[in-house]
This record gives sequence, structure tokens and C-alpha cells, in this order.
Amino acid sequence: MIKEIIKILENTKIKRPLVHSITNNITVNDCANIIHAAFGAPTMAQDEREVEQITSLCSSLVLNLGALKAQDAMLKAAIKASELNHPIVLDPVAAGASTLRSDTGKILLEDAKISVIRGNASEIRALAKGSTTTKGVEANQIDSTTEENLSKAIEMVFNYSLQTGCIIMMTGAIDLISDGKTTAVLHGGSEMMSRITGAGCMLTALTATYCGANPDKCFESAVTAAAVMNVSAELAEKRVRELTEGTASFRTRLIDFVSMISSEQIIKNIKLEILKK
Amino acid sequence: MIKEIIKILENTKIKRPLVHSITNNITVNDCANIIHAAFGAPTMAQDEREVEQITSLCSSLVLNLGALKAQDAMLKAAIKASELNHPIVLDPVAAGASTLRSDTGKILLEDAKISVIRGNASEIRALAKGSTTTKGVEANQIDSTTEENLSKAIEMVFNYSLQTGCIIMMTGAIDLISDGKTTAVLHGGSEMMSRITGAGCMLTALTATYCGANPDKCFESAVTAAAVMNVSAELAEKRVRELTEGTASFRTRLIDFVSMISSEQIIKNIKLEILKK
Amino acid sequence: MIKEIIKILENTKIKRPLVHSITNNITVNDCANIIHAAFGAPTMAQDEREVEQITSLCSSLVLNLGALKAQDAMLKAAIKASELNHPIVLDPVAAGASTLRSDTGKILLEDAKISVIRGNASEIRALAKGSTTTKGVEANQIDSTTEENLSKAIEMVFNYSLQTGCIIMMTGAIDLISDGKTTAVLHGGSEMMSRITGAGCMLTALTATYCGANPDKCFESAVTAAAVMNVSAELAEKRVRELTEGTASFRTRLIDFVSMISSEQIIKNIKLEILKK
Repeated sequence: MIKEIIKILENTKIKRPLVHSITNNITVNDCANIIHAAFGAPTMAQDEREVEQITSLCSSLVLNLGALKAQDAMLKAAIKASELNHPIVLDPVAAGASTLRSDTGKILLEDAKISVIRGNASEIRALAKGSTTTKGVEANQIDSTTEENLSKAIEMVFNYSLQTGCIIMMTGAIDLISDGKTTAVLHGGSEMMSRITGAGCMLTALTATYCGANPDKCFESAVTAAAVMNVSAELAEKRVRELTEGTASFRTRLIDFVSMISSEQIIKNIKLEILKK
Repeated sequence: MIKEIIKILENTKIKRPLVHSITNNITVNDCANIIHAAFGAPTMAQDEREVEQITSLCSSLVLNLGALKAQDAMLKAAIKASELNHPIVLDPVAAGASTLRSDTGKILLEDAKISVIRGNASEIRALAKGSTTTKGVEANQIDSTTEENLSKAIEMVFNYSLQTGCIIMMTGAIDLISDGKTTAVLHGGSEMMSRITGAGCMLTALTATYCGANPDKCFESAVTAAAVMNVSAELAEKRVRELTEGTASFRTRLIDFVSMISSEQIIKNIKLEILKK
Repeated sequence: MIKEIIKILENTKIKRPLVHSITNNITVNDCANIIHAAFGAPTMAQDEREVEQITSLCSSLVLNLGALKAQDAMLKAAIKASELNHPIVLDPVAAGASTLRSDTGKILLEDAKISVIRGNASEIRALAKGSTTTKGVEANQIDSTTEENLSKAIEMVFNYSLQTGCIIMMTGAIDLISDGKTTAVLHGGSEMMSRITGAGCMLTALTATYCGANPDKCFESAVTAAAVMNVSAELAEKRVRELTEGTASFRTRLIDFVSMISSEQIIKNIKLEILKK
């Protein structure tokens, strides 16, 4: 898998995929910047009158439920991207916290060919089980993946992937990624990721960037995105602590390290386990 | 009061309040990040179809007049938060610069139980007196609180608090906070705060974070927010000057210091005077 | 011209112009911060119910095609600003990538007195020739100005300026600015500008800031903005490389250097050629 990850990174640097992200206003700038950092090019167009034209020029699509006012635009772009077989990454931000979000998530899952669903534990559970433990955009502690509930969480992610046909990416202190055949378990990252806004949205955008350049390797692209994010977060936290900086510098340095990440840094720091069912 | 401030900081760190901010697109990312920095958790939902559900999950609410397109959402969230006795902090961004903003401010003050109004001198005067000296989002110089007009400004803030029943927080080079019984006068901060966007919006978000964790102590929470902002700005300016950095680094380091602020730093640097009427 | 540039910088610092920017959500915060960095004051109001009132308080206006949902607001503000003879800077973001954007650009050019059009090579060509090589917000490589196609590009910009009566600012690795009499050619800048979002939008906002303080010197203001951006980018890249930082730090340091730029730094680093026809 490490070899695959390196190939995906190299390929993205060569192809510089144009990534169409329909995402929320809170973290849209961070998402655009992380797509750039990963050698993609962002377009964040969300006017329903042009999204079909725009998405046709692109290589992949992000649908972020935080962009609720762009519901029509999301649906139109999703249908067009499905026709064109572009990888689509769905981020069910705060699904479960409101009926509107859960319903919008369901509609997009029904009407479009979603390649990857990337959410935290509460969000994925809300989609999978209709549970409503989501409180805002943070994973509820009772949902979070821990060493204690790890095997149950793996089973859930695996089964939800089988059920939907989507790659499921349930991220947090431990990241689980399953395509219904193989499940990747990633440790690492930084606790500081929960002290900034947008860590989840940025991971989604990063996943879409790698998927855009490697449309036949969406599972490996998802694993790559999680690995790059975790390793970059570790390097960023180290730098921030050395310089006695805080959370805003962590955000800046996180994107910095994504823009500079090398295969050597990935190989040295990745904490990845692959489970075959 | 210093003891109260320290208690408020500790309490916020333990409770990690969920803060619902309906705020403008310009500084929404900064606001979310400063809520995180202060150990709160942000949700910036502003779709009128879900804001009542969202605000019900939260501990406090920000209404920022810069979010004019979310007028209906603000009103719905405000009424729901009022029912639930959540502290509501109103930021009358650029009130007085347009009729629409002044009118929206008045509607929210009439229909919701506002706990704190946080604005610059021009904005507070526009609400209090219907004056229209506001030019954009900066305080007009003729309105600014100075040593010369300080006693008059204190009286104005005190009286406007009595009249509205709200805590009034009129901030600038000198910050005045009154609950109609006690008035706090804070000096300090940094001139660099006027060279970045969002210093005011962030202070509002910070106030709502502390109020969310300390709903019975909104006056003390407002004083805490002003103190944390001033001391963090001083530390940020010092760091920025040492490293020959500019305004964008100041913004980053301001949020950094909010995320790292200690009781010792507050005690050492706060310049606070308490006036009892 | 160097003397003019220094005068423009000094004048802006004294006048602190209020700049009304109707711009996209992706880079709105960066734009507001660069206006502040350049000693202007930003207001980003885009509600059609208030934009005429707001723009009347201001000194210049930005119309950024990325703000498609604010089409009515742009038109209203543009007409009012035209009446008041405020300099208007149009940024045709991604013109050519969708019919909607190209059409909106045309309407604004017809109905308002645009002083400056600032875009990348694909965007300017899309407006000038109706070409549709634009892909997203980046200039298409086949359009980019290079040493090879430089004389043809100069001719195009010159002629398009004559045809429209607007100052044309076609920026990229080489920046061309023409008012139909004189054409400025600027080299310099940093390749890292293409690894962040918002470099173009920020340059547009910077141009409007200098134009706002120097309304009779829009051509010189445009040259100043390009020069300040290029020199700041060079200084930022140097700092970032020294400190082993990445793209997000580059963005921060770019705005930093804009906020600190001195006449000496401009004189020492500017790479400017003036062509008279």
C-alpha cells in the first residue's frame, strides 16, 4: 500500500487535477488552499446556473453538507459528475444535528454515484443508522473510535460500505477506511486538529484532489489523504510546540506540511494497518 | 474581578460550550477558530430551515449584523435561544452605515432577549442614538473613546445599558462594559487590531464562548473576553515586532495567544478599572 | 514612474480609503486583510438592499465575478459608483469557464464605467475575444504571457484597452498594464503565488485600494499594485524558504510584506519597463 500511496502523490503532482468543491463558507478558503497545497487546482463554484458547466471541466467533485443553501447546485453538479464518472466525495457535515442535513445527505446518496463518504464518527453513524447524537460539527465522544470499540467500529464501517457501495472514511483519533473488501486503520495525527475549524473539510478536499488525479484508485487515494493529513499534523504540532505557537499557527503549518510532504516523510511516519475480510 | 475572570476561563475549558454563530462570511473562519482557541466548539449554521434545531443543541448564540442575508435565520434562532435562556450576543456590525442594518438591529433588540451588545463606538452610538456617523466597519474617529471624552462615554454606555437591559460592550482603544450597575474600563490591546479584519467579530465570538459556559455571569464573561483579547493582542504584537512580521502574522498570533492564554498572563497584563454607580 | 508609485503609496497611507468590495466568499477574508495591509479600510457589503448606500460612503469599488449570487448588488453598486465617479475595478474571475460569468462580465462592462479590468491571461482573453480556454480560476498555460508571445500579448492588451476605454491589467508570470497610451511590463513575483488561492483577487483589491486614494491616477495605481504584489511575493518566498515553510505561510507572509512595504524595497526590487505607443 505504501507504494500505491507514493504513486498517487506523484501522479497528482503531474496531473494537477481541477477539483470542484461545493462547500461551506466557514472553511472554503482552507479547502481551496489545501487543494493547491496538494498540487490540485480548486474551483468552488456553487451557483446552480453554472455548476454543470464548471464540473464538466473538472476531475472530481466535493459535496459538503455545510453548503446547505447550495442544495440545488449540489444535486445538479452531482448528477453531471456521476454521468461523467468523476469521483464524488461527500462530506456529511453535522448530519444528525438537523433533519435538513440528514435528509439532504440521503437525497445526494440516492441520486448521485458517491465514491467516498468522509465524516467523523457521529456523522457517519447518523447517515448509517439514523442516529442523532451529532452535536454541531464535532464528533460526540460516545461515538468516537477508540481502542476499546475498534473492532465494532471496523465492522460498522465495513458493513456500511457494503450496503452503500461507497468507500467509507470515518476519521478521528483513529481513521477507518473501507471499500467493503479491505479496511485501512490509520493511527496518528494530532490532538490540535480538534482545536481548529476545518480539519475534516480539508481532509475531504484532499481526498477529492487525490481521487481526481487517480480516479481508478479512490480507496488508495482516501488512504493517501488520511496519511498525508496525519503525518502533516504531527509535523505541524512538533513545529508549533518548538516555537511556542498556538492553534492558528497549527492550521497554517498543517497546510504548509501538506504542500511540502515527501514520500520519505510518509514512509517514516505512517501508522497504517490493512485488514482483508 | 480577577478571580472571577480566572474562574470563567477554567469553567470554559471544562464545559467546552457549543456556540452558535450567525455571522458574516468575511470573518466567519476567524470566528470559528477563536471559539476553538478559547476551548469552545463552533457551529455557524445559518439556514433558516434548521437554525432552531441547531441553536437548541448549543449554549449561546451570536447574531452578527454582517450576516444580512440570514436575517430570517437570525430572528428564528434568536427567538428560540431566548426561550431557552441562552445568552445572546449581538454584534451590530456597521449599524448606522445603512438603514437596513440599523433597522435589523432594532428588530432583533425588540424580538429577542439580548444579553450583550458588542460593538465599536460608532456602532453602539448608531443603535443608542440613531446617529449615522458609521462609515463601514471601522469606528469613526469622532466617536472613538479617548481619555478626553472618557467620562461622557462611560455615562452613555451605562445609560444605554439601563435603557435596554443589555450588557453594553463598547470596544476600541479603550473598552467600556456596563450592565447598568457596574462599568468596567479596560485599557491595553494593540493598534495592530485596526490593521486586520475581524478583530471586533472575533471579540464578539469570544464573548459568546465565555457566556455559553457561564450563562449566569455574562458581565464577567464580557470583561474576560475583552481582557483575553487585549492581553493576547499585546503578546502578539510583541512577537510580531521581534520577528519583523506584519499584519497577517499578527492575526495568526492573536488567535495563537488566545489559545494559550494563562491566568498568570492575564493577572500580569490586565489593565482593568471597575466603577460602581 | 517610480516617483509616482511612491507618491501613490504615501497618499494611500494618509487618505486610508474605504474600499467597497463585492467579492467571492472563497478569498473575501484575504481581500479584506490586504486592503487593511495597504492602509485602506474594507467593506464587503453585498446585500442589494444596501449596496448603494454603502458604496456612497466609499472611495472605490471592486466587482469580482466570483460573487455571482450578488449579481444584482454588483449592478446597483456599479451604477451608483459610476455616478459618483468612483474608480471601479472589475475582476472577471473564471470568465470563459461558464456562460453565466462571461455574460455577467459583459453586462457590467456595458452598464458601468469600469476603470480597471484585472484578470489572468485566460480571463482577459475570454472577455476580449469571447474565447473559452478558461479552466476554473487558473490561467490556461496556452494563454499565459511568456517571453515568446510577449509582443503579441502587449498588442492585445493595448488594443483591448483602446477598445474598452478601460485600463487593462493582465497579470501572471509577466504583468501587462495598459491604458491605451502607455503599457507597463512588470516581471518578478513568485511561483508560489500559483500555489495559493486568492493571489489574483488580492491584487484586484490592492489595485482598488490605491485607486481609491488616487482616483486621478488609476493607471499608476494599477502599476503600484502589481509592483507591491510582486516585490512582497519575492520577499515572502525568500522568508518562507529560509524557514522551511510552505504555501500557507507564504500567503501569510505575502500580506505581511504588503503591510510593511517601503519605498526603498520597491525601488530596489521593481522590474518595470514602460512602453509608449
